[in-house]
Amino acid sequence: MKQVFNFNAGPAALPKEVLQQAQQEMLNFKDSGISVMEHSHRGKLYESVHEEAKTLLKELLSIPDSYEVLFLQGGASLQFAMLPMNFLKQGELAGFITTGAWSEKARNEAAKIGATEEIVSGKEQNYTTIPALPSFAEDRYKYVHVTSNNTIFGTQWENFNAISHPFLIADMSSDILSRKIPVEKFGIIYAGAQKNLGPAGVTVVILRKDLLQQANKDLPAILSYETHVKNRSLYNTPPTFSIYLLHLVLQWVKSLGGLDAIEKKNEEKAAFIYEAIDHSNGFYSGHATKDSRSLMNITFTLPNEDLTKTFLAEAEQRGFIGLAGHRSVGGCRASTYNAVPMEACKALRNFMDEFYLNYGN
Amino acid sequence: MKQVFNFNAGPAALPKEVLQQAQQEMLNFKDSGISVMEHSHRGKLYESVHEEAKTLLKELLSIPDSYEVLFLQGGASLQFAMLPMNFLKQGELAGFITTGAWSEKARNEAAKIGATEEIVSGKEQNYTTIPALPSFAEDRYKYVHVTSNNTIFGTQWENFNAISHPFLIADMSSDILSRKIPVEKFGIIYAGAQKNLGPAGVTVVILRKDLLQQANKDLPAILSYETHVKNRSLYNTPPTFSIYLLHLVLQWVKSLGGLDAIEKKNEEKAAFIYEAIDHSNGFYSGHATKDSRSLMNITFTLPNEDLTKTFLAEAEQRGFIGLAGHRSVGGCRASTYNAVPMEACKALRNFMDEFYLNYGN
Repeated sequence: MKQVFNFNAGPAALPKEVLQQAQQEMLNFKDSGISVMEHSHRGKLYESVHEEAKTLLKELLSIPDSYEVLFLQGGASLQFAMLPMNFLKQGELAGFITTGAWSEKARNEAAKIGATEEIVSGKEQNYTTIPALPSFAEDRYKYVHVTSNNTIFGTQWENFNAISHPFLIADMSSDILSRKIPVEKFGIIYAGAQKNLGPAGVTVVILRKDLLQQANKDLPAILSYETHVKNRSLYNTPPTFSIYLLHLVLQWVKSLGGLDAIEKKNEEKAAFIYEAIDHSNGFYSGHATKDSRSLMNITFTLPNEDLTKTFLAEAEQRGFIGLAGHRSVGGCRASTYNAVPMEACKALRNFMDEFYLNYGN
Repeated sequence: MKQVFNFNAGPAALPKEVLQQAQQEMLNFKDSGISVMEHSHRGKLYESVHEEAKTLLKELLSIPDSYEVLFLQGGASLQFAMLPMNFLKQGELAGFITTGAWSEKARNEAAKIGATEEIVSGKEQNYTTIPALPSFAEDRYKYVHVTSNNTIFGTQWENFNAISHPFLIADMSSDILSRKIPVEKFGIIYAGAQKNLGPAGVTVVILRKDLLQQANKDLPAILSYETHVKNRSLYNTPPTFSIYLLHLVLQWVKSLGGLDAIEKKNEEKAAFIYEAIDHSNGFYSGHATKDSRSLMNITFTLPNEDLTKTFLAEAEQRGFIGLAGHRSVGGCRASTYNAVPMEACKALRNFMDEFYLNYGN
């Protein structure tokens, strides 16, 4: 098997140990004689996976008991619609903090359902930076929406100290489980799994239960959070295999020492690559300003389009996967999610250094 | 590994060959050095899986080019909402043919969004039979919805000769790919994958493309069929691993000889078990009337609750999985989807015969 280093932006690298376990028990889950995929979602074996995954996520993220953990489908894109459907009423306004393309989408989708307003946007700075937040009257907004990490542009909120609202919603699709977060600051946190949590096909929603009292009624059952809370995410058939893999990923994170250890490792991993950028005398140019750099998605450009192509072609030959920037912005991007090993980041740093020595004149 | 016979109603048995292939290439898909789950949904390797799965489904079901095949998430439950959101306008009425609990749900969900009417219902007969269809004025309904197979009650439309409407919608979640179907009779066919197509987590929608012209606009992007048609089911990250398994299942069906062969095998499989019922002098009582029997879900009861419990307990000891009836109706149910092998059905028939000899006096 060839040696590769997977820097895909999502779906992304999964822990090798997780894939090995899934492989090993693929045809015989817990000595049941059948695959976990072939078990009923109402059976005891699957139910224990489902409930243990919730318990582990609560433990790892220190989620208070006043919150419910849901496993849904449809990715962040479906959350963009479900949030206003469930929580915006006539005459109410949702506030958006816009730090990238996904923040824009979240607002555009909400605007089809209710009234929205942009609190601040980094668009004029081409989303190179997390903008300073203007003061606003809390009661102006039913809820405030923020994107914690911007996959395409490579910026990230270092912390959430500057943001305060009684009903704060965060799309954490691309950095959930990469570091400790103050869950109690948020009303709802949601995340597609395919970066740090598992494979594509399951979406985690962490929801403060008291919010259901203000939720709209008469929604299609499948689009109502209340349905899923009442049915413990078993209203309809959940994506059982994806949740099983999520469960394995959570066990893996715990085995590594939880979020303290993961966060430290992620900082070290990103530092390798940012150092290659910063020591290149401008040959590599980081897209994000230093104070807004993401630890998950490292975006940079080379002096010109030809060099970018050469860089990507040579990288591919060396076994680096997924280094092209998002199709909407070009350049390069290295996504260093939890499952990307330290040695992959070291290898990329060495390759970047070498490429700079060869071409940087 | 113990010998088991999986009759789960869904998630259900998958072909052993499919699971073995998935196991074998779990960490190294097509010599890429990584799992198919770790590939970008925008990369060539995954894209070929995605497109080939569509092509194979079109081929196996003889889907005309005027139809689009979509891979969505959320199961039939999300389709219950998307259909009226996309196609019911003010002043329009959707007609429902109600043959079981899932038909009821489809209508109840549509009624939250638009106007609905029941054309006929089998509820008074406790859904033991597929009711005769009264004549109705076609132009009364924007669309007519039917459920092709009723998983819980074990009834199935033998064919669709009696139903005619220019915009006929069928929920085929529990019998798609089990037999040939006249696709061109339908405007939309939809199915959750977890019975005959693959694992839970992907939903197949087959949609006649001209219908998009009458679709409602300004829907949340993720809930609009148009979005998914335009983006070839790659608007957002699709459940790539589930679609990969669907692809393997479709290859497996083709390798067996396609739907002609599958249909014949399914008839033989179901016949074994129905014979055990019919030859038991009423010890086993089939829920469905003979003319409405499903080839996918075989439902029956025993003379009393105690015998049912004993039957299920002894069955479990012999390695039979999933024979308890749906929690809403009790009794027993054997689901004999495509991947359930002939020998499992023979074994069940033998067990039923033996149990009848032991207890049927």
